[in-house]
Amino acid sequence: MTPTSKYEDLSPEEFRRLGYEVIDWIADYLEDVRSRPVLPDVKPGELVDKLPASPPEHGSDIEDIFDDFRRIILPHVTHWNHPRFMAYFSISASAPGILAEALIAALNTNGMVWKSNPAGTELEEVTLGWIREWLGLPSHYFGMIHDTASTSTMHAIAAARCWIDPGVRFTGGSRGLTLYTSQEAHSSVEKGAIAIGIGQDNVRKVPVDSDYRMCPKRLREMIRQDRDAGKTPFCVVPTVGTTSTTSIDPVPAIADIAEQERLWMHVDAAYGGAAAVVPELKHLLEGCERADSIVMNPHKWFFTPLDLSAFYTRHPQILRDAFALIPEYLRTQTDPRAVNYMDYGVPLGRRFRALKLWFVLRYFGREGIAAIIRNHIMWAGEFAELVRRSENFELTAPVTLSLVCFRYRGTDEQNQQLLEEINRSGMAFLSSTTVNGRFMIRLAIGNLRTTRDDVMAVWDLIRTSAARMFA
Amino acid sequence: MTPTSKYEDLSPEEFRRLGYEVIDWIADYLEDVRSRPVLPDVKPGELVDKLPASPPEHGSDIEDIFDDFRRIILPHVTHWNHPRFMAYFSISASAPGILAEALIAALNTNGMVWKSNPAGTELEEVTLGWIREWLGLPSHYFGMIHDTASTSTMHAIAAARCWIDPGVRFTGGSRGLTLYTSQEAHSSVEKGAIAIGIGQDNVRKVPVDSDYRMCPKRLREMIRQDRDAGKTPFCVVPTVGTTSTTSIDPVPAIADIAEQERLWMHVDAAYGGAAAVVPELKHLLEGCERADSIVMNPHKWFFTPLDLSAFYTRHPQILRDAFALIPEYLRTQTDPRAVNYMDYGVPLGRRFRALKLWFVLRYFGREGIAAIIRNHIMWAGEFAELVRRSENFELTAPVTLSLVCFRYRGTDEQNQQLLEEINRSGMAFLSSTTVNGRFMIRLAIGNLRTTRDDVMAVWDLIRTSAARMFA
Repeated sequence: MTPTSKYEDLSPEEFRRLGYEVIDWIADYLEDVRSRPVLPDVKPGELVDKLPASPPEHGSDIEDIFDDFRRIILPHVTHWNHPRFMAYFSISASAPGILAEALIAALNTNGMVWKSNPAGTELEEVTLGWIREWLGLPSHYFGMIHDTASTSTMHAIAAARCWIDPGVRFTGGSRGLTLYTSQEAHSSVEKGAIAIGIGQDNVRKVPVDSDYRMCPKRLREMIRQDRDAGKTPFCVVPTVGTTSTTSIDPVPAIADIAEQERLWMHVDAAYGGAAAVVPELKHLLEGCERADSIVMNPHKWFFTPLDLSAFYTRHPQILRDAFALIPEYLRTQTDPRAVNYMDYGVPLGRRFRALKLWFVLRYFGREGIAAIIRNHIMWAGEFAELVRRSENFELTAPVTLSLVCFRYRGTDEQNQQLLEEINRSGMAFLSSTTVNGRFMIRLAIGNLRTTRDDVMAVWDLIRTSAARMFA
Repeated sequence: MTPTSKYEDLSPEEFRRLGYEVIDWIADYLEDVRSRPVLPDVKPGELVDKLPASPPEHGSDIEDIFDDFRRIILPHVTHWNHPRFMAYFSISASAPGILAEALIAALNTNGMVWKSNPAGTELEEVTLGWIREWLGLPSHYFGMIHDTASTSTMHAIAAARCWIDPGVRFTGGSRGLTLYTSQEAHSSVEKGAIAIGIGQDNVRKVPVDSDYRMCPKRLREMIRQDRDAGKTPFCVVPTVGTTSTTSIDPVPAIADIAEQERLWMHVDAAYGGAAAVVPELKHLLEGCERADSIVMNPHKWFFTPLDLSAFYTRHPQILRDAFALIPEYLRTQTDPRAVNYMDYGVPLGRRFRALKLWFVLRYFGREGIAAIIRNHIMWAGEFAELVRRSENFELTAPVTLSLVCFRYRGTDEQNQQLLEEINRSGMAFLSSTTVNGRFMIRLAIGNLRTTRDDVMAVWDLIRTSAARMFA
């Protein structure tokens, strides 16, 4: 590897040669990923220590860089696209989405305003319209793409604040606003409220029932208490598919309260919303047609590479009121069909993310996506049945979608040890949670390449590991 | 195109076949992009109208999707990767970055915590360390990647708020805090302050001198006035390379004031910071070694595909104090070398963006990047000299880097017409701004494939268009 001067990009010939190599490598990777350990066996700092201490003064040949990627970087990667990655929520980058990412990068557009990428802006409207229709959301919902559900939810809370107190954009502050979500809500709700200045003390964690669903009765009581204390309740965030256990909050009852109490209802359906593409599961989003905003992440269960979060609201004008600021150098035409997405949120720069969504949705079609999701849910049910029938394990939460929470009938420490043993094997990667003080192991099914055999193999691994460890 | 059922991903053979096609297309695109019109000749809604009204119930063959991309989508794309895209800031996706994006998508990792992608976490530390060293920033600065400078700056302002008022995380509110930036600052400063609840009324736009640089004297006066009025000044945001004219605020003088007045100084060097990689331009970041935080965007002038913003702070603990929330299901080890980036900001999901940065920085090396940036600055100087020597045009702002602001010696309307004529030609895409009520045309040089000939050709186009139009 001799230092070379690189003052120009790769030549077309070099790009083609290495491009084919990258494509071959990805094809092999997707085919063989099952044979890799899901979690790498590495310690913090090991990769840093392996890499040169000083920055590269001179350029390197692209072959050497690609080689170092495979030789040095890859052994430190956690393989999220592995069919037995069943931790957190299992996700997938499908091949059509991967190819689209290469095109997105090549075009390198920035769709801050319509004019700066008409294709990106309009394809965003079109693809988000498809998902809206598939999920049964009202046709007048305005959709836009964010990176993650955390960002979508932060924008929802900011819009809610602007709705209850339009002057806050100018004055800042807004002390006394209170927000409601369940004890099992995703941390992004609390973090969004902290970020925009609502304050962590003003986030109410509504207790859940025995199935980990928000209690509407308790919600109503907490709102009343806050009003009595001079607070201004302004927003409630129910979840369709909580992160710990995929419990589904009673959205219709919460919508009733939101309407009566005049709260903005933002639904976090980042994971669970996808399942409503299955006709017999349409009911999952019941009540969401009354939401003020809702988030659903195609990068979770719609086989779209990270990152792509779909955010909808019935009040686009309030989002604009909260965020629009049109600097001189971006003044553009005002044709009503020319949406300038920068006016609806914080990030100005916007990749052409809609292109990957379009590739993926068109490749599978609604029917294909629904069929795969249906399988995942079926296999989760089968796994849960095996747990239920076993002597040594127990389910710890209802299985509502494709996540199974369970534990070994032993101590928390034994469950921790079991989880570590499984993850250390490289055969699978599971995660854990603690709900109401109870430690549980989580098995999440959601990868496109996961098969029923994978699920059964993981069950065998769990069962035999426990038998060996705790015999 | 017959409807097909797609319940599985592309086979390895299909992926290879279409992957090679995509690589060939990108190679051709990068080679031929100069022959395409930079701005598409399309009207709002045209693409929506061309696409089927209903979502795809059934799957499509990937060849058909790729074909529709080329035939239907592409004519609506604004070509940011075009060497004569000289609007806004000119950016580039280099070939090594494009290939890395395909790998990032294939791996599809989410580096929310160290364990969930050790390679991504550590490569982020390493690559941001390289840039820090190249730009002459202190070695103890903590670096992390955000999507855009808007997000980086919002986090900076949130950290500043937490620094001045640690309790605000809990109480929210924080009325009375005032933030200072120049009249020429990027809109993201104001938007960040609005988003986090500082309030637009509390954003002070410090006047600029005749070269569009923040006046330290006025800054000091405004701080004093605010203190007298019972406000709490807490943050100042100077810019190294403003968006309208790339003026460079006097950071050392502003740093003095920040220290005396106890303000958090966040430097917006999103565009200009890159130039400090050129040894003779190190002075551009003078004073930034005293910044509390600074943002510089590799996706602007470091040939890295969108999106990738590098955010540095000397106070990582304050970022953590502002944002950390560790949910149960993400509890992980506490080895000090295992950074969990989710604790330092809003987004939980994080793509493996460091990989593309590593590909690009290694491919070019510091020397290669500096050589290309040096050329861009030289050509901007030559263009400016042509403007200066022409009878019919005048420069409207000092040329500090690779942006030239100029106007035809005529009415604003004539300048508007000229700009529209140039952009309509498809030969180039320029943008405009209005500073102190004065309309000006902006020519930004920054694309990797731009040559001196491109710059001269655009000058000829401008000159001859004006001669023809206003003869």
